[in-house]
Amino acid sequence: MPHKVGFADICNAHQRIAPHVHRTPVLTCSSLDKRLGAGVFFKCENFQKTGSFKIRGASNALLSLTKEEKNRGVITHSSGNHAQALAHAARSEGIKATIIMPSNSTPVKMQAVAGYGADIRSCDPGQESREAVCREVQQETGSVFISPYNDNRIIAGQGTAALELASDMPDLDMLLVPVGGGGLLAGSALAAKGVNTDIKVIGTEPETANDAYQSFRKGKIIPVTRPDTVADGLRTSLGILTFAVISEQADDIITVSEEAIILAMRYVWERMKIIIEPSSAVPVAALMSGNINVRNKQIGVVLSGGNVNLDQLPWMQHV
Amino acid sequence: MPHKVGFADICNAHQRIAPHVHRTPVLTCSSLDKRLGAGVFFKCENFQKTGSFKIRGASNALLSLTKEEKNRGVITHSSGNHAQALAHAARSEGIKATIIMPSNSTPVKMQAVAGYGADIRSCDPGQESREAVCREVQQETGSVFISPYNDNRIIAGQGTAALELASDMPDLDMLLVPVGGGGLLAGSALAAKGVNTDIKVIGTEPETANDAYQSFRKGKIIPVTRPDTVADGLRTSLGILTFAVISEQADDIITVSEEAIILAMRYVWERMKIIIEPSSAVPVAALMSGNINVRNKQIGVVLSGGNVNLDQLPWMQHV
Repeated sequence: MPHKVGFADICNAHQRIAPHVHRTPVLTCSSLDKRLGAGVFFKCENFQKTGSFKIRGASNALLSLTKEEKNRGVITHSSGNHAQALAHAARSEGIKATIIMPSNSTPVKMQAVAGYGADIRSCDPGQESREAVCREVQQETGSVFISPYNDNRIIAGQGTAALELASDMPDLDMLLVPVGGGGLLAGSALAAKGVNTDIKVIGTEPETANDAYQSFRKGKIIPVTRPDTVADGLRTSLGILTFAVISEQADDIITVSEEAIILAMRYVWERMKIIIEPSSAVPVAALMSGNINVRNKQIGVVLSGGNVNLDQLPWMQHV
Repeated sequence: MPHKVGFADICNAHQRIAPHVHRTPVLTCSSLDKRLGAGVFFKCENFQKTGSFKIRGASNALLSLTKEEKNRGVITHSSGNHAQALAHAARSEGIKATIIMPSNSTPVKMQAVAGYGADIRSCDPGQESREAVCREVQQETGSVFISPYNDNRIIAGQGTAALELASDMPDLDMLLVPVGGGGLLAGSALAAKGVNTDIKVIGTEPETANDAYQSFRKGKIIPVTRPDTVADGLRTSLGILTFAVISEQADDIITVSEEAIILAMRYVWERMKIIIEPSSAVPVAALMSGNINVRNKQIGVVLSGGNVNLDQLPWMQHV
């Protein structure tokens, strides 16, 4: 029976990756606090290396490999932040990385991955094609597959952001994080409750990609069929490992509309003067929705990343 | 003969305003450091109250008023950051503020000023109309005029950002700040050299609004006639008081192109994930231009503000 991921794994991951990632700052926003009557503490993973928290899981996974596995190289499929993170972490460790990227990936992301020295292979868009090409190349090269989320080493690594936040702010009542494949939510729930058993951990998800919301309520994985959300980091569905942790550890999952995501993203840009990607705006939208009782509470939020196409901002698409 | 503003005034201003403004963080950018072969330390006044350093001077000026002057209220003309700063500082002190704003000011800035409870009076665009309406209303109301830059209390207040930066980073070789009316440059030069006499202080200015560059070289004020720059905070010309300090204290003034400003602004957004306005990008553009010898140097930069119209970004105007 495989080892079940727990708080100790997150603490070990933190020890392992600390020299390789930034300890990101915690920021506040007085106008939001005033509006909510609460204290909100933002863990700024948009300032993290490669622009998102994904470097935490990728670094932990790579640093956990045996020497023999490192020599074989690593492979993954991703159009987004995991691709950049794995490519960056692999370069730091001198490991060969192959990234399967859908042909419709944005050029700037492909350039970033190539810039980190990874070998990019193109595939047709769509989960099936990605996985098929990945398996094929993996068999050809013998590389070790590193899942974007469905891997205990990834879950443990992603939990280190919440570990730092809960250590910096020990009086949090609640922690909100976005949920896509579930690596961040699973790791964050284990980390936060490891520091403080009373903290409520809530996953936040776009209404139009609400597989985690449905899966959490029905007690089984309900994959999302046609995710159509501006939050491009949250279009994936939960995996077996992330679902297992989330159903046990998370207190709730709530959803927000596309309009609320875009408004929250713009609010953070205007008030906090920091760049967050739409996925990061999902927990902020949940806070601003009025659907959570936040009054007089201390609330942590993980701002998961800041990788945005500056030529195409979501509030401009409808002009 | 009026008191000449000096380092002691900046230290006094800092004592006075510290409870009323943020001590803003100092950030770095590893990709820029690598590119330049230097260490650059960004003083983030974009995170300051009201989104710019202007609250420092405005607070210092208002806190320096006599009780009788406070009762009379204050007045200024500004379409931008000084308007918001003065309105905010006046509200905090319970002082009535009247702001003369050109009729073509952006609605979002007028809303912000109105939101701080200031009385807005509209005027025709252009420096002459602004000043004429301001004098008229001042005579009618007896309010105290607070210049955006040509006032020793303002100069002393603006210098407190550089004072904090030079205290946090005592080994700076060089300090770069944008120059418009010159309050920030004058105050920064006095502050930085007060902490460390060897530091070089350089003003940076758009080529298309190069009055400070010309005035510095010719030894007399040469006002800019048709400033046409994306850096909307730097369209004003030096005043008598700011020019006097700058000619004595600044080491150089260098100019940058519009294209370089926009590229530098976008670079900071993409790499640092923070929102800066075009004026803040001017010293960054100067660093990236290759026209300053920065190799192996420790360089301070004041990012003056982050108030941007998110519906109209400069790299989109030419699409």
